[in-house]
Amino acid sequence: MQRWKMTLSYDGTSFHGWQVQPGLSTVQGTLAEALRQLTGESVLPQGSGRTDTGVHALAQVATVDIDCAIPAENLLRALNRSLPASVRVLEVSAVRQDFHARHSAVHKTYEYRLFPGAGTRDRAGAICSPMLAPYVWDCPLQLDLRVMQQASRSLLGTHDFTSFASSDPDRSTRLAGLEPPAHATNTRTLDHSCWQEIDGLYIYRVAGDGFLHHMVRNLVGTLTEVGRGYLEADALPAILSACNRTAAGPTAPARGLFLVKVDY
Amino acid sequence: MQRWKMTLSYDGTSFHGWQVQPGLSTVQGTLAEALRQLTGESVLPQGSGRTDTGVHALAQVATVDIDCAIPAENLLRALNRSLPASVRVLEVSAVRQDFHARHSAVHKTYEYRLFPGAGTRDRAGAICSPMLAPYVWDCPLQLDLRVMQQASRSLLGTHDFTSFASSDPDRSTRLAGLEPPAHATNTRTLDHSCWQEIDGLYIYRVAGDGFLHHMVRNLVGTLTEVGRGYLEADALPAILSACNRTAAGPTAPARGLFLVKVDY
Repeated sequence: MQRWKMTLSYDGTSFHGWQVQPGLSTVQGTLAEALRQLTGESVLPQGSGRTDTGVHALAQVATVDIDCAIPAENLLRALNRSLPASVRVLEVSAVRQDFHARHSAVHKTYEYRLFPGAGTRDRAGAICSPMLAPYVWDCPLQLDLRVMQQASRSLLGTHDFTSFASSDPDRSTRLAGLEPPAHATNTRTLDHSCWQEIDGLYIYRVAGDGFLHHMVRNLVGTLTEVGRGYLEADALPAILSACNRTAAGPTAPARGLFLVKVDY
Repeated sequence: MQRWKMTLSYDGTSFHGWQVQPGLSTVQGTLAEALRQLTGESVLPQGSGRTDTGVHALAQVATVDIDCAIPAENLLRALNRSLPASVRVLEVSAVRQDFHARHSAVHKTYEYRLFPGAGTRDRAGAICSPMLAPYVWDCPLQLDLRVMQQASRSLLGTHDFTSFASSDPDRSTRLAGLEPPAHATNTRTLDHSCWQEIDGLYIYRVAGDGFLHHMVRNLVGTLTEVGRGYLEADALPAILSACNRTAAGPTAPARGLFLVKVDY
């Protein structure tokens, strides 16, 4: 038996998220089916973490154990022939049995892509291209990128991110022992938290040792409340201290979120 | 009553083409429904031409007559609020009653986007991003762009393009008088026909006074036969002279095709 590490890119638009669910199209289920067709083995690849419905990945990582002997290059090519175009295997490498996509992950990078729409100053009449729409939040708010960037810096470092964690409907399953949480608390350390304007989009890039459920989307939803003037640029420390989801802003739409990188 | 000219962009992925069809989601039908919700009037916008299932538009043009008085800016904003994100109205302007999206069109520009995959020299291992896949032909052939460009130049000028016209299942409807063809013959004049490599994609841009059904996709399918060495670079004049669809190559996939511009 060989354990494989696979790097995957996917367009989350047509999937009900990463995690396999009966009767629904998911990335994990689609990959498992492609592996079954190829090897005849029923295996469930383990991801570095789940992504929600509509969330995209530039480089998700999964591990899977396969009995049949197959060279890495053939495995990659055969999977890409079998998978739909909305999922691509970018890399495959043999790893040791003690390597696990989720437990071995030490650092993750996400990117959130926001299209500043007609609400934002100097953007009157800006219309989001239909070809871009599945991959951005077409945001109707009038946003000040400068104060969003200022506020995002107070997220750097180690904090209890409970205020930015949505209640997780699947948490009970995980606590039942199937997938023990990698972190026992809601404390995480962020080493990157930065807004930039690139090609007319407002891009939020955030990286750290782990993320809670909906955390990036809740951070973006809160930072846009700063950007539109509903919250002050220095409001974040008090929101973190509150350790209460209701202290923070709304959840930004899934379609703008990309899992960019997982480090081991 | 006012006649409006509308410039539209759409992602063709989820539509059964432009033309309204009972029980199917089409761009024309979706726009008609948005207009009905807005004005209460049942109107069918006329496009500059049909686009097939999966074909995209950066700037399709449609005309429609509306009884209710409404400023252009409000019409544009209200339609974009009502339409799905996969269709955007980019511009709206009042036009005279003798302006018609199809009959008044004098020139059209198309672009075909091809992702040269692992088959092409220097592209071994090239994997098409899932986020790009709906908008390109992920082409498995080994292609020589230089000879494709060389061959594409013999299409310039005035020719009978019968060899590049697919038989059109809806032609009988049109000939029945509902939509009289703008051109009575299969002779068209192209003033642009050029391949370029842009950001790793092979882009074919073609422009002229009109296009037959599937013409651009049949041109691309034939030019890639040149690119892979199945046809000589100087084969195009004889294919044109044959005036027979079987003389030309296959039809390239719809997903790579964009209607870029319609001139009046």
